[in-house]
Amino acid sequence: MVLGRVYLVGAGPGDPDLLTVKARRLIEQADTVVYDRLVGEGVMNLVPRRAERIFVGKAPKRHAVPQEAINELLVRLALDGRRVVRLKGGDPYVFGRGSEEALAVAEAGIPFEIVPGVTAACGCGAYAGIPLTHRGLATGVRFVTGHCRSDEELNLNWASLADPQTTLVFYMALMNLPEIQQKLIAAGLPPTTPAAIVSSGTTDAQALCIATLADLAERAAERDLPSPCLTIIGQVVSLAPELAWRTAAGPVPDGLPDMSEAVRA
Amino acid sequence: MVLGRVYLVGAGPGDPDLLTVKARRLIEQADTVVYDRLVGEGVMNLVPRRAERIFVGKAPKRHAVPQEAINELLVRLALDGRRVVRLKGGDPYVFGRGSEEALAVAEAGIPFEIVPGVTAACGCGAYAGIPLTHRGLATGVRFVTGHCRSDEELNLNWASLADPQTTLVFYMALMNLPEIQQKLIAAGLPPTTPAAIVSSGTTDAQALCIATLADLAERAAERDLPSPCLTIIGQVVSLAPELAWRTAAGPVPDGLPDMSEAVRA
Ligand SMILES: C[S@@+](CC[C@H](N)C(=O)[O-])C[C@H]1O[C@@H](n2cnc3c(N)ncnc32)[C@H](O)[C@@H]1O
Ligand SMILES: C[S@@+](CC[C@H](N)C(=O)[O-])C[C@H]1O[C@@H](n2cnc3c(N)ncnc32)[C@H](O)[C@@H]1O
Repeated sequence: MVLGRVYLVGAGPGDPDLLTVKARRLIEQADTVVYDRLVGEGVMNLVPRRAERIFVGKAPKRHAVPQEAINELLVRLALDGRRVVRLKGGDPYVFGRGSEEALAVAEAGIPFEIVPGVTAACGCGAYAGIPLTHRGLATGVRFVTGHCRSDEELNLNWASLADPQTTLVFYMALMNLPEIQQKLIAAGLPPTTPAAIVSSGTTDAQALCIATLADLAERAAERDLPSPCLTIIGQVVSLAPELAWRTAAGPVPDGLPDMSEAVRA
Repeated sequence: MVLGRVYLVGAGPGDPDLLTVKARRLIEQADTVVYDRLVGEGVMNLVPRRAERIFVGKAPKRHAVPQEAINELLVRLALDGRRVVRLKGGDPYVFGRGSEEALAVAEAGIPFEIVPGVTAACGCGAYAGIPLTHRGLATGVRFVTGHCRSDEELNLNWASLADPQTTLVFYMALMNLPEIQQKLIAAGLPPTTPAAIVSSGTTDAQALCIATLADLAERAAERDLPSPCLTIIGQVVSLAPELAWRTAAGPVPDGLPDMSEAVRA
């Protein structure tokens, strides 16, 4: 019997135009596509009719498929001789548990390839006008998860995060926004630090909420910001009004510091 | 006169298959392509014959074109009515000075678009078998620049960087490797922390050097690692021997801790 192959493929942040050339070709040639909620509709429309589609995300009112079961599914499909494309939102190795799936497949002796993708931070930054680094404003960028079990506090090193020269990108943070802003301010990050939430970034539904760190959660609560949402905190957010090209940056709140001098220095 | 348009386009880490669908289409339709050294040869081969190519990188024995001159060039070409594709390695908003070019173009009133790309960290991670995050090994990832003026010390917050639960990705760090490893160890990061250098990641010439933090610079010096090189430090590097699929991970040095228990926990 012929062994199949598993491709762990980053589907990018939503806009199907942001798929890589390799991802697009693999999708078109797939026997089976295993996907979850984060994979954009535009991307799924590229899956050929003849291919089998298996949804492993969390459906409304149902539990998510356990990670262990997804791992086993990928192995079983490949043992059946199939060309399996496992689609993951963004990049498979950024908060995607892609490496757990890769390890399971590797241990089963199944040939596999990893196809990197445009991660949400890069996609949302580009489409919302927020560079992740910028001379004078940010010397580096940090991707953090803002997610934890609902009965727990976030287990993050706030002192280390509260650096005005580092752009902070929180994935999966919307639920814990009040805690995040309060802890960052307590750790010394200025309350006037510009902050943004990008909702459904790079898709036609993209929305951008700009605020200061101190009132980000409040501003977000006033609006309807459908998930997925990415939170970006740092001085680079102040460039969005000038650099937003896909959708307008929207109203800039009072109290947001003007960074234009720093930028032009 | 018709105004042109500037597309600031991420060319990805090297493999032309990792261009986005949008980037590839824009390259095929460009009047003028402005590029530098980091843009892969395979990508440049996609530029149509009829398009003008302008190299603005640092040629051997010559100075690099100053950023200001690149900004002016983009503006002038667009005022001339051209469809300008400005190609940048990786993602344009990650250590690429892309936002400076975008600001210049925006201020001149020229229509522009930003096309995000697969950044070196994601590309090299995927092709070298190093996930940027992994349950139990890394709760987040940080992109830092390891570059500074040759007469200066690196101006980084070492205490904040020395977090065993965060993957550190140093861009442009090869020159300063001895300083980086010494300062990180002094700040408390265990000398046995797994570390890697990915040379020419995602291209046919990709090479991978795995070591411990304590001997990374020494191991790197023993080998010919052509630039560009990306340095990844963190427990996730220990997965490379299992997850490398494109090229073998190469010899694993003595003293590298076995993370398999943590991974399977
Ligand atoms: C489980 S993580 C997966 C991240 C993905 N692997 C990546 O590289 O982008 C899911 C989170 O990514 C972020 N995200 C993904 N796509 C997004 C989009 N189009 N707009 C805003 N946030 C997005 C959100 O924070 C969401 O909660
Ligand atoms: C000026 S920075 C530009 C980064 C780019 N904008 C990105 O997002 O990848 C150049 C540095 O990126 C890293 N880099 C880019 N492409 C690479 C590749 N294919 N392999 C290894 N490192 C790479 C190297 O550290 C190099 O010194």
